[in-house]
Amino acid sequence: MAKTNTPGHMSVAGQKKTYSAESLRSFTASAFEKVGVPPEDAALAAASLVEADLRGVETHGISHYLPLHIKRIKIGLVEPRANIVIKRERPSTVLLDGGNGLGQVIAGRAMRMAIEKAAHTGAAFVGITNSNHFGACAYWSMMALPHDQIGIAMTNGSKLTAPWGGRQAMLGTAPISVAIPGDREGSVVLDMATTATTKGRVLLYDKRNLRLDPTWALDAIGRPTTDPKEALQGLLQPVGGYKGYGLALVIELLSGILTGGDWSYHLGGPLAEDFSRPTGVGSCFGAIAVDAYMEPDEFKAQVDRVIREIHESPRAEGCERIYMPGEIEAECKARRETEGIPLDTDVVKRLTDMGDDLGVPFPAEM
Amino acid sequence: MAKTNTPGHMSVAGQKKTYSAESLRSFTASAFEKVGVPPEDAALAAASLVEADLRGVETHGISHYLPLHIKRIKIGLVEPRANIVIKRERPSTVLLDGGNGLGQVIAGRAMRMAIEKAAHTGAAFVGITNSNHFGACAYWSMMALPHDQIGIAMTNGSKLTAPWGGRQAMLGTAPISVAIPGDREGSVVLDMATTATTKGRVLLYDKRNLRLDPTWALDAIGRPTTDPKEALQGLLQPVGGYKGYGLALVIELLSGILTGGDWSYHLGGPLAEDFSRPTGVGSCFGAIAVDAYMEPDEFKAQVDRVIREIHESPRAEGCERIYMPGEIEAECKARRETEGIPLDTDVVKRLTDMGDDLGVPFPAEM
Repeated sequence: MAKTNTPGHMSVAGQKKTYSAESLRSFTASAFEKVGVPPEDAALAAASLVEADLRGVETHGISHYLPLHIKRIKIGLVEPRANIVIKRERPSTVLLDGGNGLGQVIAGRAMRMAIEKAAHTGAAFVGITNSNHFGACAYWSMMALPHDQIGIAMTNGSKLTAPWGGRQAMLGTAPISVAIPGDREGSVVLDMATTATTKGRVLLYDKRNLRLDPTWALDAIGRPTTDPKEALQGLLQPVGGYKGYGLALVIELLSGILTGGDWSYHLGGPLAEDFSRPTGVGSCFGAIAVDAYMEPDEFKAQVDRVIREIHESPRAEGCERIYMPGEIEAECKARRETEGIPLDTDVVKRLTDMGDDLGVPFPAEM
Repeated sequence: MAKTNTPGHMSVAGQKKTYSAESLRSFTASAFEKVGVPPEDAALAAASLVEADLRGVETHGISHYLPLHIKRIKIGLVEPRANIVIKRERPSTVLLDGGNGLGQVIAGRAMRMAIEKAAHTGAAFVGITNSNHFGACAYWSMMALPHDQIGIAMTNGSKLTAPWGGRQAMLGTAPISVAIPGDREGSVVLDMATTATTKGRVLLYDKRNLRLDPTWALDAIGRPTTDPKEALQGLLQPVGGYKGYGLALVIELLSGILTGGDWSYHLGGPLAEDFSRPTGVGSCFGAIAVDAYMEPDEFKAQVDRVIREIHESPRAEGCERIYMPGEIEAECKARRETEGIPLDTDVVKRLTDMGDDLGVPFPAEM
């Protein structure tokens, strides 16, 4: 039994160079500024992208998304200085039109509003429409933690999976993150796609000539396949079959339909590849103030206790350690904050070339 | 590929007798009244239990839970006239102490408060502690639908599964339901345990000498097993491995810890079997008012469109029909409202005996 708890963001091992988080944040922010993003927004987008690299979630870090965001801004598909407008507002809810700005900037605004509202009313729920890819969900849910709040983030995206029983790509990976504050033992940070795996992992298995788990993907006519090549012609499966499909559909309806946008089926194809139109991403965010229920210190002490009880519980045969959701990522971040962030040499080359075009030098290795 | 969308509540086929929902509701309400439950509360508990039978979710209907609730009230482990107290309240949140009353009565109060608050503030989140098993989650989330709200319900319960990598029962099946209003095409009603299957299904497979799916259960030392007998000595697996574990943990922390109770690990063992102490169940409920985001008629028309798009999408090989979450249950209810609710003869005998003890005659067949 694969008790690895490995999230879907394994990367292909190659030659690596190592950079400090600070130097990558500075490079990323400068790149955004060069294409017209205001400094404060550029800093937020840079911080959230590099945070994914720190946490070992490279699929959502600068390697893939920084060149993509820069390109989309340059060709006019993303507004570098978006006009974010409140469309509806109640004491505990907001609907924001993101004006097709950077997803990170709109998500940051939305989550800040959710936190402010929850501080007054106890709980809040904020939706955004006309937005773009905001990176990893956990960055936004975790914004609630220093406020002693529970944070929630979810989004639609590129269509990569079918309804259960179908074979047409209609639903996104429909990720959801929930961040719950603990104290000394750390916080619980769930951040999961509702698909069984990621396209990145299928690509990796193809490269390494490995067979897929039969619950991960479907071939072109909707049959489960263990062949990565067949899977690449087909689709990802929802996690747990009809359960993952149900979760994904709920996330699609909240993120896309309730916000006045659309579900992934009608979005602009894979976000990385369709340069013909705005992505039209919709997302939503929740915040729950712990002190609406109990004293935050007491709550965090209880969360710590649960974490300890799980850590100390007997392990299944072959399992060396039981992890909390988000624990692998938190440990990776602690390590990379001192040891630096490793980037594949081909990623370094791509980012260096991009920087040269913009007049922003790529930083030196650590 | 098993494209059956079959939820976990298959029942063992046996001899059946058929009863009208109305007659079972009346019997159930009278039984509750006989043990001291006020008429209005008895009617709610009866309606919610029989609704599960109407929807084909027999595991949460009267067969199992009515005798259990009656027994617990009779021996003093559940308060028939509970004193439900507001412990904390904000404009969008409430924490209720349920006074160890019937879970249905406390859940009904909580969900009504969530709906009222969301009507004013746009969104609300209500927690309950010191409660009991409230039946199927969907009954409570669906209370939001006639108010043009999105309803959410989740709860802790009996410990039946381990943290991912562990082998000790610590987490409940941690169910969550989300109900989203549609119009002519019906509503989307997700109601799922975060375990891969139910103990009931394992028992059924054992009875029928069938092998389990290897992702469903673990043996006593935490290894996946396809042998139902080994599984009955072991545990259920979380759905999708570490993802289901993460979801379950979040649901446990919100339902049990945030409400000031505890997580399933410390609850009174399997709810059906531990008659030594109150169950101490905690649950939480959310409501989001659609009109805080858009006109409800427009929203419901868009949900209808999504449902049609999914229904009409191409099917995987071997799949005859693509279902929406809750569609099988809604169709079962429509059928059973006219054709009646089938009950196994041994269930009829047990309920008849219980009724005789209470002086409440079991109804005649349809």
